[in-house]
Amino acid sequence: METKEIISPVKEYLIRFNDYYQDTIKSDITIINEINSYLSQRKGKQIRPAISFLVAQISGCINENTIKAATVMELLHNAALVHDDILDDSDYRRGLETVHSKWDIPTAILYADYLLALSFNLASKIKIKKINQIVSRAFKLMCEAEFLQKIKVRDIHTKEDDYFRIIYGKTASLIEATTESAAITATNDKNIINKFKKFGKYLGLLYQIQDDIIDYTSNKSVSGKSQYNDIKEKKITLPLIHSFSKIGRDNHIADMMKNGRLSDEEITQVAETVLKTGGIDYSFKYALQYHSKAIDILSKFPDSLAKSSLNKLVNYLLNRNQ
Amino acid sequence: METKEIISPVKEYLIRFNDYYQDTIKSDITIINEINSYLSQRKGKQIRPAISFLVAQISGCINENTIKAATVMELLHNAALVHDDILDDSDYRRGLETVHSKWDIPTAILYADYLLALSFNLASKIKIKKINQIVSRAFKLMCEAEFLQKIKVRDIHTKEDDYFRIIYGKTASLIEATTESAAITATNDKNIINKFKKFGKYLGLLYQIQDDIIDYTSNKSVSGKSQYNDIKEKKITLPLIHSFSKIGRDNHIADMMKNGRLSDEEITQVAETVLKTGGIDYSFKYALQYHSKAIDILSKFPDSLAKSSLNKLVNYLLNRNQ
Repeated sequence: METKEIISPVKEYLIRFNDYYQDTIKSDITIINEINSYLSQRKGKQIRPAISFLVAQISGCINENTIKAATVMELLHNAALVHDDILDDSDYRRGLETVHSKWDIPTAILYADYLLALSFNLASKIKIKKINQIVSRAFKLMCEAEFLQKIKVRDIHTKEDDYFRIIYGKTASLIEATTESAAITATNDKNIINKFKKFGKYLGLLYQIQDDIIDYTSNKSVSGKSQYNDIKEKKITLPLIHSFSKIGRDNHIADMMKNGRLSDEEITQVAETVLKTGGIDYSFKYALQYHSKAIDILSKFPDSLAKSSLNKLVNYLLNRNQ
Repeated sequence: METKEIISPVKEYLIRFNDYYQDTIKSDITIINEINSYLSQRKGKQIRPAISFLVAQISGCINENTIKAATVMELLHNAALVHDDILDDSDYRRGLETVHSKWDIPTAILYADYLLALSFNLASKIKIKKINQIVSRAFKLMCEAEFLQKIKVRDIHTKEDDYFRIIYGKTASLIEATTESAAITATNDKNIINKFKKFGKYLGLLYQIQDDIIDYTSNKSVSGKSQYNDIKEKKITLPLIHSFSKIGRDNHIADMMKNGRLSDEEITQVAETVLKTGGIDYSFKYALQYHSKAIDILSKFPDSLAKSSLNKLVNYLLNRNQ
């Protein structure tokens, strides 16, 4: 509902973007097209490409390069999702079987590689050299963050710095690259480009912190995600890092996060401790900080439909509870 | 022995290349460095980077960008190897356990992604926009060829065109990208760049056709590869495609290649049929063609140590029997 409102000023561009994306991924190799059309059932809310167009609109004007840059980012994002699903051994994503589950791991690896190749190939055809740097840097940060996240599972000594590096790498770097590259297609003004680069970073951090809060607070799975996933998977996110700083690491909660599978009762115990020790409030303060930083950047630009959409988006990310 | 001679004119650059490569891949994330140093045990003959330097030498001069471009290609190549080993379910490569076998599939996927990210990131930092196009195009061709190869396994109707598209994509496109990008770092002369692009393509095709011949003709595993691998894996390569064109597809040989696991006796039967029907001679004619095309290109350049090395390399690729 709210997201429809957010994307509405750039709706016509999203149609062109979809056509361009589908055109870019199609191949004369049957199996690639089979996966393409299978995945096209899962189109999503299109917030990411909408951000590209809204940013470009505010920065100057939307043009062919904006559509291409949005496609570059979407290709990278979708490649990462296919690889992530293998890494996390997820059989479903938003109700649809994952590629490695429907086909097999080799096919999924290759398909993701194919999308990556298309992403970098398309980036290289945009006549702005910087785009290649932006997208490959984001991909590098994403890979490093995935490694770090893997290492930090069950590590009760995970620091806030580790946490922020992980969420910056795995989530914010892509949004940062999306907003920076969108701005670059629309203007030469380094000041504007830099502002939108930061805006994307804050947006991504806000999004991920809220996601990690929601894992503790959502009552029911509406989004297809079940509650307490992070506890189950022994991911030590910001709320829990804060709790450990309060209760120390020489206790039953720490032991449970270090060791084997948890029972439902144990999971609830961890969650309750996080709530009692203020882990959620503490994390929400960070979310609020990034929210106001993002809003602050937008306030520097003259009012417009696009700006109002981005404002709505930032507020939506702060207030969502699923 | 012979390969040492080939790389000797650019030995000092290979040392600088190795340092640069190791510098590029090192990380502050422990597991990445563990894999890096593990894989550094398997340095290989360094023919690929040597080709970069020899080509740049002949095209103009070797410079910092040549070292970077060679590193871009090596990163792409090594990423592809890690992914390939997962796809082929290989536990060993040249005597060393593969990454997914020593660690696990998620780690191997991530590590390969990391190398890919570094490759594209480094390419984006070379101040020649074309390099990004060259490397991403090669990667795209590699992915498509892997898909095509996967589809064409057991397909007795595989055509020569399919075969050439596969070997161009999976092998020649990378060598072509290596020689083209090396030349681009050394000269602006489009004629020279184009010549070396073609040279790389012919070199790659020659290499792969010979590899596919050797699978039928080598008596013993010296290179760590066992004989008749392609028959075992039901890969229909040029020698067998030719045989099918002679004996048709309505026979025991075709049935064996279509269906389940083959006994040693059956494997020998396929191999003998290929030899008897001239599959090897036919394929060797193609190898000879690409050999002379490559030699012909070199003949257009003035004599030099580097040129003589590349001549030796082309001859070596034609005459090797392991």
